[in-house]
Amino acid sequence: MSTSLTDAELRAWAYLTAVAEPPCAPLIALVDRYGAQEAAQMVKSQRLPAGQGAVRTATVARCATDTSAQDLEIAARRGARLLTPQDPDWPAWALSCLTRASTAARGGAPLALWVRGGGSPAAMTGSAIGLVGSRAATRYGELVAGNLGDGLAAAGWTVISGAAYGVDGAAHRAALAAGGPTLAVLACGIDRDYPAGHARLLAEIAGTGAVVTEYAPGTTAGKHRFLTRNRLVAGLSAATVVVEAGARSGAANTAAWTRKLGRPLGAVPGPVTSSTSVGCNQMIADGQATLVTDTASAIALVEINGHDNKVAAPARPTDDLPPEQFRVIEALPARGGLTLTEIAFLAGLAEDVVRGALAHLEFRGLVDSAAGSWSLAR
Amino acid sequence: MSTSLTDAELRAWAYLTAVAEPPCAPLIALVDRYGAQEAAQMVKSQRLPAGQGAVRTATVARCATDTSAQDLEIAARRGARLLTPQDPDWPAWALSCLTRASTAARGGAPLALWVRGGGSPAAMTGSAIGLVGSRAATRYGELVAGNLGDGLAAAGWTVISGAAYGVDGAAHRAALAAGGPTLAVLACGIDRDYPAGHARLLAEIAGTGAVVTEYAPGTTAGKHRFLTRNRLVAGLSAATVVVEAGARSGAANTAAWTRKLGRPLGAVPGPVTSSTSVGCNQMIADGQATLVTDTASAIALVEINGHDNKVAAPARPTDDLPPEQFRVIEALPARGGLTLTEIAFLAGLAEDVVRGALAHLEFRGLVDSAAGSWSLAR
Repeated sequence: MSTSLTDAELRAWAYLTAVAEPPCAPLIALVDRYGAQEAAQMVKSQRLPAGQGAVRTATVARCATDTSAQDLEIAARRGARLLTPQDPDWPAWALSCLTRASTAARGGAPLALWVRGGGSPAAMTGSAIGLVGSRAATRYGELVAGNLGDGLAAAGWTVISGAAYGVDGAAHRAALAAGGPTLAVLACGIDRDYPAGHARLLAEIAGTGAVVTEYAPGTTAGKHRFLTRNRLVAGLSAATVVVEAGARSGAANTAAWTRKLGRPLGAVPGPVTSSTSVGCNQMIADGQATLVTDTASAIALVEINGHDNKVAAPARPTDDLPPEQFRVIEALPARGGLTLTEIAFLAGLAEDVVRGALAHLEFRGLVDSAAGSWSLAR
Repeated sequence: MSTSLTDAELRAWAYLTAVAEPPCAPLIALVDRYGAQEAAQMVKSQRLPAGQGAVRTATVARCATDTSAQDLEIAARRGARLLTPQDPDWPAWALSCLTRASTAARGGAPLALWVRGGGSPAAMTGSAIGLVGSRAATRYGELVAGNLGDGLAAAGWTVISGAAYGVDGAAHRAALAAGGPTLAVLACGIDRDYPAGHARLLAEIAGTGAVVTEYAPGTTAGKHRFLTRNRLVAGLSAATVVVEAGARSGAANTAAWTRKLGRPLGAVPGPVTSSTSVGCNQMIADGQATLVTDTASAIALVEINGHDNKVAAPARPTDDLPPEQFRVIEALPARGGLTLTEIAFLAGLAEDVVRGALAHLEFRGLVDSAAGSWSLAR
């Protein structure tokens, strides 16, 4: 537990991590101005100062639900604590790139971090390199991720990744085997083992390093949360290396964040005959990423940063959606429909915002409505 | 046969291709000034005009040996002819880059070309791409060479390579299978099947395309001739793609020639765990080569040429030797020794030049002498 905070302060912070879908720059600004406890009271009562319409919009759907006491209890049972920006373990230096980045859409700094494990995020991100890549990695991808994870850990670097199957898991495991610290960033609550098959790996990462997330306990992993999480992998790492990635992948999103945040990006080349190397080869060919072959060239990324910040344009139908429409799409289940109120709660958006977003999405042919129920278009 | 030449003219050209180790800029200048027949007479008699010391040095060792009649007969039996720069089939446009390049060392244009097969080098090099790579190619390298050879041939491009085992052979074969023309450049006489295992492949290449060499019949393949040959592969191709290459390889030499001649260079990335992809990955990482993944990106090389002409520095003990010392080293057998006169003949150098070169090589510890016999240092 953050010893410098009272229980009431901690509960206020916990409530705030759950009440708005992160990252929420207006809410962070409110906390910065009034303190966590007063900000939490304002949000809970929706008695917000004038000019705080953005906070209202971001919190109105969940403000009446305060599970902070049980969230803190769940976290404690999990060996996790809530880390706030005032804590000496807060990775302020690493995250400073996020406050400089766009706070719109999925950008912006985290309000607070739930941290499982004894590792200090501040200390661990002093020299850290991200290793990311395809969940459907080939043996080649897992081998290279393992080699890099091993080499970086042996050289004293923290390996940061997303604990997914494939490249992420191989990188974490190799770092652990080399006795080095490794840090995993989740796209769900700290109480969740995601993916379920990595429950033991997550426990091992927490055993010597840290598992972190900005999501309150109970939060499920969702597609937009992976994309949001990826900015933290990019931001916490001095440089990020994509080990193996297909033409369109989560790793490509982390790569885009890395460049957007001005951090060096590396990519490991692979056979042109392998679909899981298409993304890496393309990033290298386009000059977006520096070709990385081994630990030394990964570390060299941090010493040489000659890239511009151009980010590849989006190409999927949902890629260029405004963030609230994207969150509404993500809230809808694969089968069946939801009411407006249900969508608002799951997306963490005000009902009038959801209504507007649904109208746009229906116009685009992405959602269908029938008898007050909304569903994904077939 | 070049119908526009008399037998006497042809014999003069044939003599001149054998009398000096190509490329020999001073000899070409002599032919340009006096014509082939008069130049051949001057060389044979060593009655050269004042200021032609360089021609004397280059021809004195072999001038008394005229095998031109039998060379032309051997070539004819092989289905080969001697192509001179006056012939409409001479690839003047493609080779214009060589006259602009350094004429020192192994640079410079060929005096003439022995051509086996009905393909016109001028027509075939109108749109041609070189595919080169490791003799010890992996299945991956041969697969990619085959894909590129097939795709380029199908798209109407001539595939140019060196007929070696591995990547070269796979590229030629795929082009042939696709019904496209392919051109092989040899590092030995047109009468030689080198490598021996590719005798049938060479016949097939000649069947629809062309096998070319600047070496007179009877000339054996030697290391310096491979390096000299590589400039012709690079020069005859509008762009060259290295498919698979180790850290130091013949393909790296062709790549260096490609850049020196101002032609676009491509390289196919490969697994960082594969020693035969180290060279390709390095060329891409250093910005020397553009990453090539498929036929389209190989063809795109010709449309975009944004490289500078920086060439990587040599690194092997014999790499930075002056050309005459290199030729002397290459003339020496792996076992046993040779006399000064024998070395002079094999290297095509004047005895006093060989004597000076041997003194330098002995000083460097690269050769040993004993009782008038010279051998490679152990």
